[in-house]
Amino acid sequence: MKIIFIGSGNIATHLSNALKLSGHEILQVYSRTKSNAKRLAVNIGAEFTDDLGKLRSDADIFIIAVKDGVLPEIAAKVNVGKRLVVHTSGSMDMEVLKNTSVNYGVFYPLQSFSKKIKVDVSGVPILIEANKAGNERILFRLASAITGKKNIHRMNSAKRKTVHLAAVFVNNFSNHLYAIADELLKDKGVPFDILKPLIIETAKKIQHNPPLKMQTGPAKRGDRKIISEHLKMLESNPSYKKIYSLISKSISEAIPGT
Amino acid sequence: MKIIFIGSGNIATHLSNALKLSGHEILQVYSRTKSNAKRLAVNIGAEFTDDLGKLRSDADIFIIAVKDGVLPEIAAKVNVGKRLVVHTSGSMDMEVLKNTSVNYGVFYPLQSFSKKIKVDVSGVPILIEANKAGNERILFRLASAITGKKNIHRMNSAKRKTVHLAAVFVNNFSNHLYAIADELLKDKGVPFDILKPLIIETAKKIQHNPPLKMQTGPAKRGDRKIISEHLKMLESNPSYKKIYSLISKSISEAIPGT
Repeated sequence: MKIIFIGSGNIATHLSNALKLSGHEILQVYSRTKSNAKRLAVNIGAEFTDDLGKLRSDADIFIIAVKDGVLPEIAAKVNVGKRLVVHTSGSMDMEVLKNTSVNYGVFYPLQSFSKKIKVDVSGVPILIEANKAGNERILFRLASAITGKKNIHRMNSAKRKTVHLAAVFVNNFSNHLYAIADELLKDKGVPFDILKPLIIETAKKIQHNPPLKMQTGPAKRGDRKIISEHLKMLESNPSYKKIYSLISKSISEAIPGT
Repeated sequence: MKIIFIGSGNIATHLSNALKLSGHEILQVYSRTKSNAKRLAVNIGAEFTDDLGKLRSDADIFIIAVKDGVLPEIAAKVNVGKRLVVHTSGSMDMEVLKNTSVNYGVFYPLQSFSKKIKVDVSGVPILIEANKAGNERILFRLASAITGKKNIHRMNSAKRKTVHLAAVFVNNFSNHLYAIADELLKDKGVPFDILKPLIIETAKKIQHNPPLKMQTGPAKRGDRKIISEHLKMLESNPSYKKIYSLISKSISEAIPGT
């Protein structure tokens, strides 16, 4: 298929590279910042523009991969007639595109992309939604070019939003817990490296077991002595102390009999 | 070395198996529950007892791997004279053993063990501490039998307690975030499997990058619209809602300029 990317950020970069590698053609990249559009476009053999008025019209699909905050504005400015247009957002409604084309949908890769970090896209779940069955079939085909069929999920906007919320917990929030741990260790001159095997093991354990059953630690055991020692150690950081006691409380509520 | 284990839980199980595999001899396993002592002992070719008065005296090292809450009591009841005795706790002082022997220390494997889940002990960090340099050398040798030398860290009790606190954040608390996500998805009939690649990727990303730099998400971007939508979706669960807003606030405080 011939594809135009509107946006040149993390998702656009990873998606366009994966689609290019799987044999699709990227015609053009738009970004409001010309240098960003150029950098990505040159890399994948596409044209580039910073002018929405100069979007080519001969693409099979337009992929809008921009920040949630600017998506409604972009959607309002672009009209691709009968061409298929999708956005890549977990948290935005499909209907934000209803005036952009008569054929529209969502193509949401459920992964945390950073420009500089390679991700094996072949294992990434892709959540698709479309306003017509035919469009959904096109999106399924597109998704199956870059990920395994079992990773493709048809899902409406309401469910997708819940998946996005859950992703915030496991990705954004877990990462912040890693950052807190890093800071606690730095204060004592202990390298963060020491925690890396534990972090990997924690993520691996739930691949084949429900997380509730994998729970360990002082809150799960109801070990008040250790908990109060830990709270004392966090005295100088009220925000981390609050996070500690709130999550500990939530753990003990989740585990029956503690 | 000839080793006696006091305790038959997760740590005792994993440690004794790894030590046995590396050529050490486990003489005896104690547990206050005879069937538990037996189960582990039979598995590693050791004797077993549920009577602290019947501990053999011909071991080179006694490893007390019991819950923090009962460690002081066990330490008070056992005296092994000049034999080396260690505990395996991250959060207990080394000095809890000062009346158990004239030679004592700590041997803390920094990992979350579950009895039924195999862990590759060869990558597990082991934190050691001893009351004499000679004892520390023995513990270093013992640790190097089961993990790489770069994973062995000499560390005093105060620092080890901070490592343990940090481990609670990255292991216990991250796991609880996984459990929350699981529950949110279950409510909408979405399988938890969909988040597993993201969870692994989140843990992998910080193996070679500082977590603070890997932060993404609405709180990092300062996206108040998405945050308030998420809070609305959590309305029916005040505890998760509080966790969401507290961690989001903490992220925005940690990231300068948001």
